[in-house]
Amino acid sequence: MFERNQHFAQLPNSYLFKRISEKVHAFRNTHGDAYLINLGIGDTTIPLPQSLTEQLARFCTSLSTKEGYAGYQNEQGSYRLREKITSRFYANTPVDPSEVFISDGTKCDIGRLQLLCAHLTPVLIQNPTYPVYRDGTLLHGSQQIIYGSCTPQNNFFPVFEGTPKLIYLCSPNNPTGHAFSRDQLTQLIEYAQDVGALILFDAAYSSYIGDSSTPKSIFEIEGSRQCAIEVNSFSKSFGFTGIRLGWTVVPRELEFFYPDFSRLHGTLFNGASLLAQKAGEIALDEAYEESKNAIRAYKENTLCMRNALLEQGVRLYGGDSAPYLWVHVGNMTSWEAFDILLEESGIVCTPGSGFGSAGEHFIRLSGFFHPDERERVLHALKECRLFQQEALPHTL
Amino acid sequence: MFERNQHFAQLPNSYLFKRISEKVHAFRNTHGDAYLINLGIGDTTIPLPQSLTEQLARFCTSLSTKEGYAGYQNEQGSYRLREKITSRFYANTPVDPSEVFISDGTKCDIGRLQLLCAHLTPVLIQNPTYPVYRDGTLLHGSQQIIYGSCTPQNNFFPVFEGTPKLIYLCSPNNPTGHAFSRDQLTQLIEYAQDVGALILFDAAYSSYIGDSSTPKSIFEIEGSRQCAIEVNSFSKSFGFTGIRLGWTVVPRELEFFYPDFSRLHGTLFNGASLLAQKAGEIALDEAYEESKNAIRAYKENTLCMRNALLEQGVRLYGGDSAPYLWVHVGNMTSWEAFDILLEESGIVCTPGSGFGSAGEHFIRLSGFFHPDERERVLHALKECRLFQQEALPHTL
Repeated sequence: MFERNQHFAQLPNSYLFKRISEKVHAFRNTHGDAYLINLGIGDTTIPLPQSLTEQLARFCTSLSTKEGYAGYQNEQGSYRLREKITSRFYANTPVDPSEVFISDGTKCDIGRLQLLCAHLTPVLIQNPTYPVYRDGTLLHGSQQIIYGSCTPQNNFFPVFEGTPKLIYLCSPNNPTGHAFSRDQLTQLIEYAQDVGALILFDAAYSSYIGDSSTPKSIFEIEGSRQCAIEVNSFSKSFGFTGIRLGWTVVPRELEFFYPDFSRLHGTLFNGASLLAQKAGEIALDEAYEESKNAIRAYKENTLCMRNALLEQGVRLYGGDSAPYLWVHVGNMTSWEAFDILLEESGIVCTPGSGFGSAGEHFIRLSGFFHPDERERVLHALKECRLFQQEALPHTL
Repeated sequence: MFERNQHFAQLPNSYLFKRISEKVHAFRNTHGDAYLINLGIGDTTIPLPQSLTEQLARFCTSLSTKEGYAGYQNEQGSYRLREKITSRFYANTPVDPSEVFISDGTKCDIGRLQLLCAHLTPVLIQNPTYPVYRDGTLLHGSQQIIYGSCTPQNNFFPVFEGTPKLIYLCSPNNPTGHAFSRDQLTQLIEYAQDVGALILFDAAYSSYIGDSSTPKSIFEIEGSRQCAIEVNSFSKSFGFTGIRLGWTVVPRELEFFYPDFSRLHGTLFNGASLLAQKAGEIALDEAYEESKNAIRAYKENTLCMRNALLEQGVRLYGGDSAPYLWVHVGNMTSWEAFDILLEESGIVCTPGSGFGSAGEHFIRLSGFFHPDERERVLHALKECRLFQQEALPHTL
């Protein structure tokens, strides 16, 4: 009876993580949970700091008092939270709290930015990268997508043709774990300014960057305020994947983008939950030092995996700037490697091809497992036939 | 340097509540908070039940334990919450928990539905109504809007011309407080089926419907599953305006709308905060009876205001199905009445014209103030020159 929205019909049928979960479900049915080693997830596993949950609990209790109760919040987000974000994440930049818009996470922010920027085509997207940039672009009706391959051969710097009007940059990139260097970012900003493109910079993993010379925000680079918007999130840095809290920075230099994004925030969004915002304030204040323990633990997980695989001569990337390893699997396809890992070793990974064609022959291994699992994970990786030298001759 | 998204340029410049808040801000600067009687807000003021906040606090505390911690949630929302919603709100309907999608509020749901239905034009919108339907439609690029006037003369039943493909129905309607009767809804569904239109039904105030013969959900009406999607919210029923929790029901009969909305939920949304979802589960379970006290109190506020104004011969509507009174102000414009109320009596109302041209010569008075304010409110309304019979001769 009704006509279908053809933009929705454009989307590839099966979403990466859905297919994985179906395969894992089938495996569980025959082997049980005990055999699974989940290195596929981008989800956090380490509990929140007690200093955070105790204070958050007191805040909840206060909501049944006349003094403590609160209704609608400022649609742009609590000013205190925006100040904390500015001082914790943008101390080396000219970003001001008035330019920070609090959200319920980067996925939602990306959707709102896609609505705001629906007229900016063609769109340039890294290949491989987080699938939401492409899927959301298609849902908003743009089909002019240019993919810029980011491979070890080009030091993960996107190579492409054409004249994009909108450029998605994910750095550190999910899944490769590569963070653009200062030089690479400077080049990208110069390029955007040359062609008149807007950059949407996703820094969701910036807290994992270990090298102090690598920028954690695009606003550390000169010229960025004239051509870039940045999104970031509490999910991976503070274990807020379930709590839902993120933010977008829109520099005032971007003329109408600032008031238009503000209008969009007030029209089709009502602000992040005040519970999530309160949790964010505590995470950046009283619980800040304790919160960093989780980042350290996930990085340690990742580096232990890296060492174990390097000892076996496996060719891999990442781990320094994100809790992901980007592992080459030789001539095998990503899904072939996925199936072998799952069926022979009970290890769940993420097939690289799910992040774009240039991710073929790679898998992503995630360090987001609980550290209590570390020994089990390392043992499984060492035992695994896939990573024995004879199995991956072309990776050496 | 950048081109502006022309859909954003289409929007009327000043958003209703922003203009109000500027005027109120100016008044406060000269008179102070003590003089203000805020009947303009749609925001809740009564604290949450203690039975809710205590249990929610325990849940927060558990997030720092390995057993209690949780990351990403099911993108469609907790199944337990969807079951509770189904049994509390859809007991008289065939709605199934699998058709309920949990969200962070109706504004956001409306935005997502507008993306899903961007191809369905022209759009029919009640006049007057909640401005988000129009503003969101314009932001998504459709300019073919048909307005159906809902006035006392037509018993608030939309009268219009043309053949809409998408029909927004807000019932109980904000600002008029009118809930469609069973007969009116049956007619609207027959009409939608005749012209092949989809209905987006916003039932955010359904918990305020007092008359048991008035439907609280469109799914109480035969034929609705073939042509309607419903949104609803915890905001006004449970005081969750700050917590952010709502839901959308998409019947499976709607073919591709169901999988497409599901895909959209997973692609550009990551689910409502698990804190908000837990609060919702408690509100519909252990704290359910205590939660109803707030609805009763806001209704009592509204009915007391109604009686006070009726005694003075003021012509008004609403109050039975929503905590809003829709008050005729004679030949005055809505903004003239707003200014007089504010300047002479310190009363903040909402000008009816802000909800659409058919709201001209009306103001909306809200019963969402705290009951402790009731005597002060009633006194101010009785003293107010605007509501004296000689001031509003044309309303009698």
